Amino acid sequence: MSKARLLQHSSTILCATGGFACIFVVVSVIMSTDEPRELSRRTEISLAAVEDYVIKNINPENIRQFLRYLTRQPHLGGTEAEKEVAQWVAHTWQQQGLDQVHLVPYHVLLSYPDPIIPNLVRIVDGENNTAWVSAARQKPLYAPEEASLDIPFTFNGYAAHGNVTGDVVYAYYGREQDFDFLAKSGINISSKIVLARYGKIFRANIAKMAETKGAVGVVLYSDPADYAPNGSDFVYPHSSYMPPSAAPFGTVKLVDGDPLTPFYPATESAFHIPEEEAPIPKIPVQPIGYEDAWQILSRMGGTVAPVDWQGSLNITYHLGPGFVNPGWTLNLDVNNNNTQTTTHNVVGIITGHEEPDRYVILGNHLDAWILGALDPNSGTAAMLELSRVLLQLHNETGWRPRRSLVFCGWGAEEYGIVASVEWTEQFGKQLSDRTIAYLNVDMAIEGNYTLRTQSTPLLTDAIFQSAQRIPNPDPVELAAGRKTVYDTWKARRPDRHQSDKPQMQFIGSGSDYKGFQHNLGIPCMDICYTHDNNTIGDPMYHTLYETFALVDEIYDKGFYFHSAVTALWGDLAVVLAESKILPFSLVTYATFIIGAQQDIFENYGELISSQNISWQFFADAAQAFNASVAVFTESLNTLDLNSDLAVRRVNDQLMMVERAFIDPLGLPGRPEYK
Amino acid sequence: MSKARLLQHSSTILCATGGFACIFVVVSVIMSTDEPRELSRRTEISLAAVEDYVIKNINPENIRQFLRYLTRQPHLGGTEAEKEVAQWVAHTWQQQGLDQVHLVPYHVLLSYPDPIIPNLVRIVDGENNTAWVSAARQKPLYAPEEASLDIPFTFNGYAAHGNVTGDVVYAYYGREQDFDFLAKSGINISSKIVLARYGKIFRANIAKMAETKGAVGVVLYSDPADYAPNGSDFVYPHSSYMPPSAAPFGTVKLVDGDPLTPFYPATESAFHIPEEEAPIPKIPVQPIGYEDAWQILSRMGGTVAPVDWQGSLNITYHLGPGFVNPGWTLNLDVNNNNTQTTTHNVVGIITGHEEPDRYVILGNHLDAWILGALDPNSGTAAMLELSRVLLQLHNETGWRPRRSLVFCGWGAEEYGIVASVEWTEQFGKQLSDRTIAYLNVDMAIEGNYTLRTQSTPLLTDAIFQSAQRIPNPDPVELAAGRKTVYDTWKARRPDRHQSDKPQMQFIGSGSDYKGFQHNLGIPCMDICYTHDNNTIGDPMYHTLYETFALVDEIYDKGFYFHSAVTALWGDLAVVLAESKILPFSLVTYATFIIGAQQDIFENYGELISSQNISWQFFADAAQAFNASVAVFTESLNTLDLNSDLAVRRVNDQLMMVERAFIDPLGLPGRPEYK
Repeated sequence: MSKARLLQHSSTILCATGGFACIFVVVSVIMSTDEPRELSRRTEISLAAVEDYVIKNINPENIRQFLRYLTRQPHLGGTEAEKEVAQWVAHTWQQQGLDQVHLVPYHVLLSYPDPIIPNLVRIVDGENNTAWVSAARQKPLYAPEEASLDIPFTFNGYAAHGNVTGDVVYAYYGREQDFDFLAKSGINISSKIVLARYGKIFRANIAKMAETKGAVGVVLYSDPADYAPNGSDFVYPHSSYMPPSAAPFGTVKLVDGDPLTPFYPATESAFHIPEEEAPIPKIPVQPIGYEDAWQILSRMGGTVAPVDWQGSLNITYHLGPGFVNPGWTLNLDVNNNNTQTTTHNVVGIITGHEEPDRYVILGNHLDAWILGALDPNSGTAAMLELSRVLLQLHNETGWRPRRSLVFCGWGAEEYGIVASVEWTEQFGKQLSDRTIAYLNVDMAIEGNYTLRTQSTPLLTDAIFQSAQRIPNPDPVELAAGRKTVYDTWKARRPDRHQSDKPQMQFIGSGSDYKGFQHNLGIPCMDICYTHDNNTIGDPMYHTLYETFALVDEIYDKGFYFHSAVTALWGDLAVVLAESKILPFSLVTYATFIIGAQQDIFENYGELISSQNISWQFFADAAQAFNASVAVFTESLNTLDLNSDLAVRRVNDQLMMVERAFIDPLGLPGRPEYK
Repeated sequence: MSKARLLQHSSTILCATGGFACIFVVVSVIMSTDEPRELSRRTEISLAAVEDYVIKNINPENIRQFLRYLTRQPHLGGTEAEKEVAQWVAHTWQQQGLDQVHLVPYHVLLSYPDPIIPNLVRIVDGENNTAWVSAARQKPLYAPEEASLDIPFTFNGYAAHGNVTGDVVYAYYGREQDFDFLAKSGINISSKIVLARYGKIFRANIAKMAETKGAVGVVLYSDPADYAPNGSDFVYPHSSYMPPSAAPFGTVKLVDGDPLTPFYPATESAFHIPEEEAPIPKIPVQPIGYEDAWQILSRMGGTVAPVDWQGSLNITYHLGPGFVNPGWTLNLDVNNNNTQTTTHNVVGIITGHEEPDRYVILGNHLDAWILGALDPNSGTAAMLELSRVLLQLHNETGWRPRRSLVFCGWGAEEYGIVASVEWTEQFGKQLSDRTIAYLNVDMAIEGNYTLRTQSTPLLTDAIFQSAQRIPNPDPVELAAGRKTVYDTWKARRPDRHQSDKPQMQFIGSGSDYKGFQHNLGIPCMDICYTHDNNTIGDPMYHTLYETFALVDEIYDKGFYFHSAVTALWGDLAVVLAESKILPFSLVTYATFIIGAQQDIFENYGELISSQNISWQFFADAAQAFNASVAVFTESLNTLDLNSDLAVRRVNDQLMMVERAFIDPLGLPGRPEYK
């Protein structure tokens, strides 16, 4: 242990002290206000009436106007434009009348393309001349703002600065099995440039795997087979399918949060690891459109790729390595720079009346790769309308929630969940002690087909119940007799095992809930209206064409789908903030665990036995959990609901359920997943 | 990451599930009882009246009888004798009427001498004959039980099994500077046997340092200069000073808890590291009496040891290496065995009335190296009398504390704080959420000179106030006008900076508070009546001569000192369990931190600056903490004491203060210190 490290740690301990100071800052925020607002003013309105009010008062035109404002220019994380959005959100909340609004800055390592020299992919002929070069920017197709000079050069966040030349190898989706297949086919990717398709795994894993196997660069594209199923005429702006020039941006950093301050908040006093040690790629990576990918793929030689590796470009896909023409190579010239800069969270609070020190947190990120009309600002617009409705209820009736509602606009999510992770690192103890749930909406809509939810099983029943209260925004579905969001969800995405229920996905780690769910054990969910199964993902995701027009003219004319998601989000928040006993679904959780346990054993039982490991402890623990749930649930029947302390005791136990699954040391080899 | 490790982790996750199940077990324990006891029965008695009752009703003769029973035979951790003690304590608590009593077993790696083959140190002459051999056991001197056949052979816990021969080197107290001095004097200890004195540092560090520097064995003894200041005639049983045959036992394991399950509870499902990887010595280590050390030291050759290295044996101490007689060597034959065995905690609960889910925990360990009349059973006897008095108050008046009182008897503390650490690992989340304070008494008395306390600064004021309520047990001091325990403490151990206050030591990590204070951030204290400064430590510590007679006839005739410690312990517990607002001394803590910060800067400021590290963050954080304390303290003036939830909110903030200083990742290189 070097002295420097020791002393770094001392300052870390004092971050804790500083954090403690923040306890009082944050809590005094929660407990009092600058102007002595009437915190004691609380009209008794039934929960049902509050729910009804929220659902009925959401105004789609407001959401439309919020979205219009948010998407008028690019606003990448850590830029002035992002800061302007944060300040505007803060201002909006102040105008609406939230009890407290704060900007919370973090100084973090982000990544930008050079403002003058674009990132380019070139085909170089045998005499070292450029035979072809890729587009520096995505082509403006429809909305005026697509042609703005502020549109950044196409890039992948944190891709290394570098200029490399070599033979290209086509690696399908860049998964482990795809690289294994190449190796089995005798294709060594050392010193090669990998061309891989977006869509099946996190792009940072493609880059990491390629780097590990010795590739000198990676080019990423989206195959029209996955994102333009009806051909290149039926694409944006005529549909929501992907046009040939679309080159999705995205981070290629693997670990969440600021890469220089792992596990600790990126405050001024934090110890920073050297940039060379940061978990970011060492090789250049670059996305291109499929019209540009065609230029490469159509010239490639080597073995013909297997049938399932073929895409829908009008050529035969080859694995390579290299081009048909001898001596021709691929050149990848990436001019990104990593920069320490400031990103901002905005935190706004409606202080709870009975339990101000219990938080129901709602969050959405503010930064976008480009214009961000779906990702994330469909969610931002929904959040601003929701806070407006709740304040309107307060102003009209004096209503105040039992527990505090905390609204959060996060910075630099696109760079790998940066500022929300830093916030959970800085305030982890307070949040862990006091937070009922974190309700995330990254995109309110990425389609108009059905609701899609990810959640801890603890929130499943509450989500189901809320979804049954939200009127169906789809007139066709309504006409078919499906009155609620739940009805369409159940019909179009039934659960695989129980077809009378909709499908609930287990919460992943792909958005700002990551720090809450996986570091702190706070129950989380993420909802949005999604597309059908004709494409792998949202076809316009992270491209230039995520415009206001896309939403306003194609996805959600009238903003009824936005309103439905806003209503669902609000209803859940109100139910969690108002219910005397927290509406957590313990039985569903126990059932989920028993099922998961059986699934794992069925799939890996032999492997487990072969390692001389007993599975019985897991099976017994799942059953013990189930039995505990039964005893606890039964005990609620005799609970004295008039005793504040007895109610608090039970709710504290309920809050501990999700925390009980957190191991502060994290997973072996992945300490950031706890 | 190997599959085995992955799956191990799965079962760890399920320990959490199991732990969760335990939440309900423990909490339902807290919330209900098997026979429907009248939990609602609580007579309103003022806190002052409860304190008065506790102090006045402690009966010294009861303590004496408890101690007599506990010390009738050896009861090493993990043995049948320890289990009998645990069962007897459990039975006693059941008889007294505690609401719940549990035995909590852990299966852990402990260490024992061979039952038949003793550990011996021999001087071997040039012809390989034994010239002298050390005592296998300490000599019976006075109490009949000293001669029991159950007295174990002399050993150090976890010292490696091994038979080594080599030149002996005298290493004074075996500190880093002592080994440095030897090196500077040209004495290489590689392949040597180190002879070192107990007293200045933890013995496991002596062993570790010797092993690291290549020594093949270590022999430890206590020099009469440190433990028998008035000569070898004025020793036990004529005084409490150390007799020549005393060979203190003690663990030489460095890391606390079960060595095979670091960071996780030693339950059946836990992943166990291989014994070769356990943090225990690889070389034999053995304690001997100073009459045996004389045999070695008096024959040693080489350089004469420096003046301050000379002890009070009637010889000139030499550094060695080796003996004066050419060809003579030292042989160390240690036959210890490491064994996985079961140790037990006993947990007894008086359920709180208003806040059953808030715990004031009192603890003492049950295991002893031999008879344990001071360490630990003076504390056990005190704990049993304290629980008796509290139950008597309950039975007479219906009184019940506002918060739960939890009494703990710990297993295998002597082996390096084993079963209490395992318990805090298993129930860490619940304990961290719910525990007000952990109040430890390892030894109630190790002398009769003055009170000695270790504590977090958060408990300082409460301890000072309680100590002022406890009548002075010393008639001489009483006659001198010092009416309370506090008065003698202040007179005999004044604070170095403020002579009008007694000295409060910061809490260390030498007893069962370790897991609470340093892993969980629970405010801890440890108290005992201690000796004067004529010896380094308690001279009979860990020897055969810690007998009931030593206590009953020498240290505490009439058991008044025991009673005083019991009363202080009980008073603090009652104040913490009953006060509506927790009596935590925030101002004292802030002052302590500012002072500590300044001390560090004065001592290490140059080093810090030379590493290009700013100290300002630490200084600012200390000031910010101080400012927060002022704001918070002021805010208490307007608190609505009739609102249960408002009171709970403030107390939860107070509970978070100590937690705020915990870093779940631990210190760099010492992850077990958080």
